[in-house]
Amino acid sequence: MHSFQELAHEFIARFDTPHFPKYPASLYEPGNYFLNIGGKRIRPIMCLMGNELFGDISDDAYNVAIAIELFHNFTLVHDDIMDAAPLRRGMETVHTKYGSSVALLCGDVMMIKAYDYINKISLEHIKAVIELFNKTAAEVCEGQQLDMDFEKQEAVLFEEYLHMITLKTSVLLAASLKLGAIIGGAGEANCNSIYNFGLNLGLAFQIQDDYLDAFGDPAKFGKDVGGDIRQNKKTFLLLHALEVATPEQKTIINELMATNPADKVEKMLEIFKACNVDAWAKQLKEQYLEKAYDYLDEIAVTATRKAELTKLAAYLIQREN
Amino acid sequence: MHSFQELAHEFIARFDTPHFPKYPASLYEPGNYFLNIGGKRIRPIMCLMGNELFGDISDDAYNVAIAIELFHNFTLVHDDIMDAAPLRRGMETVHTKYGSSVALLCGDVMMIKAYDYINKISLEHIKAVIELFNKTAAEVCEGQQLDMDFEKQEAVLFEEYLHMITLKTSVLLAASLKLGAIIGGAGEANCNSIYNFGLNLGLAFQIQDDYLDAFGDPAKFGKDVGGDIRQNKKTFLLLHALEVATPEQKTIINELMATNPADKVEKMLEIFKACNVDAWAKQLKEQYLEKAYDYLDEIAVTATRKAELTKLAAYLIQREN
Repeated sequence: MHSFQELAHEFIARFDTPHFPKYPASLYEPGNYFLNIGGKRIRPIMCLMGNELFGDISDDAYNVAIAIELFHNFTLVHDDIMDAAPLRRGMETVHTKYGSSVALLCGDVMMIKAYDYINKISLEHIKAVIELFNKTAAEVCEGQQLDMDFEKQEAVLFEEYLHMITLKTSVLLAASLKLGAIIGGAGEANCNSIYNFGLNLGLAFQIQDDYLDAFGDPAKFGKDVGGDIRQNKKTFLLLHALEVATPEQKTIINELMATNPADKVEKMLEIFKACNVDAWAKQLKEQYLEKAYDYLDEIAVTATRKAELTKLAAYLIQREN
Repeated sequence: MHSFQELAHEFIARFDTPHFPKYPASLYEPGNYFLNIGGKRIRPIMCLMGNELFGDISDDAYNVAIAIELFHNFTLVHDDIMDAAPLRRGMETVHTKYGSSVALLCGDVMMIKAYDYINKISLEHIKAVIELFNKTAAEVCEGQQLDMDFEKQEAVLFEEYLHMITLKTSVLLAASLKLGAIIGGAGEANCNSIYNFGLNLGLAFQIQDDYLDAFGDPAKFGKDVGGDIRQNKKTFLLLHALEVATPEQKTIINELMATNPADKVEKMLEIFKACNVDAWAKQLKEQYLEKAYDYLDEIAVTATRKAELTKLAAYLIQREN
C-alpha cells in the first residue's frame, strides 16, 4: 500500500505533461497555464487510493484520476468566471489573464479532454465509470448553481446549505474514491461504503475549513483569518449562529453584515462564541469524521489495506482529541 | 429508406421530452427553455441517415443523435455568451433571459447530459463513438476560438478562414453522418467517405449562406440581407474580395468598414460585383458540392440507399443549374 505522498509523487509525474495540442495556442495555452498553477491533486490521488484498496493500481485508475483532475480544473476555471475571482492559488485566473470568452472555451475543452482520458480505460468498467462521473459532474454544477442562488437569498436553512455544500465539494471526493474502487473490481456494498466515507470526510473537511477561517491561528492557517466574515459568506458557522442566536444577537449579526464596520470580524466572533458556535462546529466536524470512519470500517478488506485512508483522513482533518 | 422529413418527425417526437431533472429549477429550467426554442435538428437527423445507409436505424443511433443535438445546443448557449447575442431564432438567448453565470452552467450540464446519452449505447461502438465525438467537440471549440481571434485580426488569409469555418461548422455535420455510419457497422473507407461528403456539403452550405446574405432575394432569404456586410463580418465573400480587389477597391472596402455610411451595403455589393465575387462564390459552392457528391459516390452501398442523402444535399443547397 502506498501513502498519499507517494501516490502524489507518482501522479504528479504522470500528470505533468501538456494535455492539449499546440494549435490554436490562443485556446490551449491558457489550459496548460492553469494546470501548471498546481494544486494538491487530492481528488485524483483519492481515486488511486480507492483503487489500491482492492488491488494493484491499474492504468485505468491513472486515466480516470487524470480525468477527475481535469474535470476539477474545468469547474475551477468556470467558477472563477462566475465568481469574478482575480486570483487562484496566488496566480491570475484564466479569465483575468486571457478574458472571459477564452476562459469559457478553455474550460469546455478541458472537460472534453477529461472524457478523452476516460475513453482510454478498459471496456469492462467504462459504462459504470461514465455513469458515476456524469452524475457527479452534474451534481457539482448543481452545487455551484445553488451556491449562487443562496448568495442572493436572504435566509438559507442549515439543511439547504448542507445539501449545497455536499454537492459542491463532497460528491467529487466521494466519487473519486468510488471510481477507483469500481476499477478495482469492488462490489456494490464496498463501493457504497467508500463513497459514504468520502462524502462524510468531505463535510468534516468543509466544516474545519469554515472553523479555521473564523477561529484558526493566523500563523498556522496560512489564509487571511476572518475572510469569510468580512465577505458575508454563508458558512456552517454563520448559518448555525443565525439559527441559535437571540433576537438581539440576530439584529447585531445583520447590522454587522449590512454596515461592514472596521471591527466586524471581532464583533462577529464575539457573537459566535456567545452562541457556542465554535464548540458546536468542532463537535459537528467530529460527528462527520466518526461517520466517515464507520463507513471505512464497513469495507470488507483487511484493516491493513485501510491504513493509508485512515492516515489521509487524519492528514486532512486535525482532530482535537 | 426514410426521408429527412420523416426522420425529423420521428427524431423530434423522441427529443421532445424534458432532458433535465426539475431541481434545481434555477439550473435546469433554462436548459429546457433553450431546447424548446427549436431548430431544424439537421445534425441528429444526419446521424440517423448515416446510420440507415448501412442498415436499420438502431436505438444506439437515436441516443447518439440526441447527444449530438445536446452538444450542438451547448455550443450555441456558450457561443451566445461570447458573442453577447441577445436573440436566437427570435427568442431571448439563455444569458439574456437568465444571466451569464446561469448560461455558462446551463451549457456545462447540457454537455454532461450529451455524454449520458452516449453512455446508453452498446459497448461494441462506445469507444469509437466517444473518440470521434470528443475530437469533433474539441474542433468546434477550436473553430469558435479562431473565429474570435480573427475578429480582432486585421488580415485573415482565405485559407485560414476556410480552416476556421471547417472546424466551426462543417466537422459536426461530417461527424454526425460518420457516427451514424459507425453504429451501422460501416468499415473505415465508407466511414471516411461519408465524413468527407458531410465536410464538403457543410462548406458548400456555408458559402451559400454567405452568398445569400449578400446577394439573396430578401423575400425568399428570410433573414436581413446585407447583415454580414453591415456587421463587418469576415465571410468567404469579403475575404475573397480583399484578395482580388485593386488597391483602390481595397481602400474603399476598408473605408466602408471603418466609417459605416448609410449606403455601405449598396457600395460594398458594387465592389463585390466588380470583383466578380458573386460568380466566384457560386462556382466555389458548386465545387464543394461536386466534391461532396464524389465522396457519396465512393460509398460502397447501392445507389438506392444513397437517394435520401442526395435529396438532403439538394434540399440544403439550391443549385443554380
